[in-house]
Amino acid sequence: MTQECYIGVDLGATNLKAGAVTAGACVLARTSVQTQAHRGADFIVDNICRTIEAVREAAGVERQDVAGVGIGSPGTLDIKAGMVHFVPNMPLWCNVPVVREVSSRTGYRAVLENDANAAAYGEFWVGAGRGVVSMVMLTLGTGIGGGIIANGRLVHGDTDCAGELGHMIIEAGGVKCACGNNGCLEAYASANSLARRFAEAVNAGGDSSLARAVRSGRPVDAKAVCEAALAGDPLANRIFNETALYLGVGIVNILHIINPARVVIAGGLINAGDLLMRPIRQTVRNRALPDSYRRCDIVFASLGEDAGFIGGAGCALVAFGTSQ
Amino acid sequence: MTQECYIGVDLGATNLKAGAVTAGACVLARTSVQTQAHRGADFIVDNICRTIEAVREAAGVERQDVAGVGIGSPGTLDIKAGMVHFVPNMPLWCNVPVVREVSSRTGYRAVLENDANAAAYGEFWVGAGRGVVSMVMLTLGTGIGGGIIANGRLVHGDTDCAGELGHMIIEAGGVKCACGNNGCLEAYASANSLARRFAEAVNAGGDSSLARAVRSGRPVDAKAVCEAALAGDPLANRIFNETALYLGVGIVNILHIINPARVVIAGGLINAGDLLMRPIRQTVRNRALPDSYRRCDIVFASLGEDAGFIGGAGCALVAFGTSQ
Repeated sequence: MTQECYIGVDLGATNLKAGAVTAGACVLARTSVQTQAHRGADFIVDNICRTIEAVREAAGVERQDVAGVGIGSPGTLDIKAGMVHFVPNMPLWCNVPVVREVSSRTGYRAVLENDANAAAYGEFWVGAGRGVVSMVMLTLGTGIGGGIIANGRLVHGDTDCAGELGHMIIEAGGVKCACGNNGCLEAYASANSLARRFAEAVNAGGDSSLARAVRSGRPVDAKAVCEAALAGDPLANRIFNETALYLGVGIVNILHIINPARVVIAGGLINAGDLLMRPIRQTVRNRALPDSYRRCDIVFASLGEDAGFIGGAGCALVAFGTSQ
Repeated sequence: MTQECYIGVDLGATNLKAGAVTAGACVLARTSVQTQAHRGADFIVDNICRTIEAVREAAGVERQDVAGVGIGSPGTLDIKAGMVHFVPNMPLWCNVPVVREVSSRTGYRAVLENDANAAAYGEFWVGAGRGVVSMVMLTLGTGIGGGIIANGRLVHGDTDCAGELGHMIIEAGGVKCACGNNGCLEAYASANSLARRFAEAVNAGGDSSLARAVRSGRPVDAKAVCEAALAGDPLANRIFNETALYLGVGIVNILHIINPARVVIAGGLINAGDLLMRPIRQTVRNRALPDSYRRCDIVFASLGEDAGFIGGAGCALVAFGTSQ
């Protein structure tokens, strides 16, 4: 018996992941390889195509049963045109007609999606966003990424730039963000900002189990701060708490603007669990309009690293599923 | 020859407006009466029904050619259920099944919409938002209202509360808003906040042509400040400029989150023209991510007081038009 299948691709600067997923969201196989982005766009396209074929074979799916491919890529995109325009940390992945190239080299129909949107769609389809028609996902990493689903559909915006939730201004006269603006959520609440604010607090004389590491110039990342906080370090706890309060303000804005049924938080910081979630929920309870908040769940993502390729496959299902 | 027609109703605490609008967005007739909200929900429903019939007759439309009615109401609503739950300044307009009541009393199919959303939809359908598929409207009044259209559809949110743009936090530690929260856009940039900040600046010793009026306790509203600013009053100009900068920050957030093709600004303050628009556009140019802004127009609303009932009719067209 044959089984119709969608292949999702999650392209990152370092890793390239792919999965073969059924229309019922069952992951038949997954694979991950090095992107080797330094070898140029033609190599990356070939790498994507090879990975698609590898995961199809691993899943035991025939070529004719691949109903479509969904490719999540970082950067500025033209989604309808299937073009990647520019990715800051992948300089050779520039002005690539990735949908046309992958389609012509593999023979499969393909669709392009922003990587953060693809991950959000994955959670919406089968993860922590399951069962609602409106959802917003916030991914806390180097920066803060986002994806918005309203009326059951991804919101792309006019130039495929919607969901830049990290660059929502929460302090009009606030600290400088990497984007050049002041007061962005990302400048307060990304994993990198958390580590930076922790180091600043130590250098300002704060006491912590990590103080010696910070003062000797060793890199202390958000993961280390998280572990210290979970082990009871008071300064790490304070910085975590502040981060959560800022995130709470960002989520209040999301509730007031989008009023989603669910807010999903993703990224390494969610390993902090209640340390992060409790002050977020408290801030939202204190600051959101009751009608905007009363039915909204704020939850952690559940698909981990698989969200991107599952969402890519889901986008392919949306694009090509009805014509099957 | 008969002409299919949609009747839009714009219910306010003071005035009740209605218009008969064709599927091609031609306004055949409009009417406005006092709401007389103090006379209770049953009276208001009757008033709506009488106004619907009056405007239909004024338009020369037969009963059988009314394809649907769209009612815009303030307050917390359950749009699908056609219920108005609560309106702060219309205490008797509470828990009213307005769609059921209007339908049963008039015999027309009806649909409910939030008043700010209806006005936004009116501008989107036939006003300043024409020709795009994504638009956000900000209405500057006592507070700041909003409406969001993404993928060609109004975004209602999970509890019909989306688009509360006035309660977007732009200064996490900022001034108190009427809602009880701190730092809301509305607390800085509504018409009321503008008048309040102007009075504060005068009372702090600022010189202005309106200083005597403020100090003697006469009411100086946003309209008066606007006129003084247009006449060259430096303090009024400064306050206008500050208001526009805050609005610019709110619009930057809208661009980053929703990435609409157009932002429409409505309300009495738009009479200030370039005095308002120039610093708004400058702030957005300075602070928005280039890809989020490059194709977005920021414009003033064009339908004035008609936007609400035109949008109500448009919502009826969306709800009932395809089944005609």
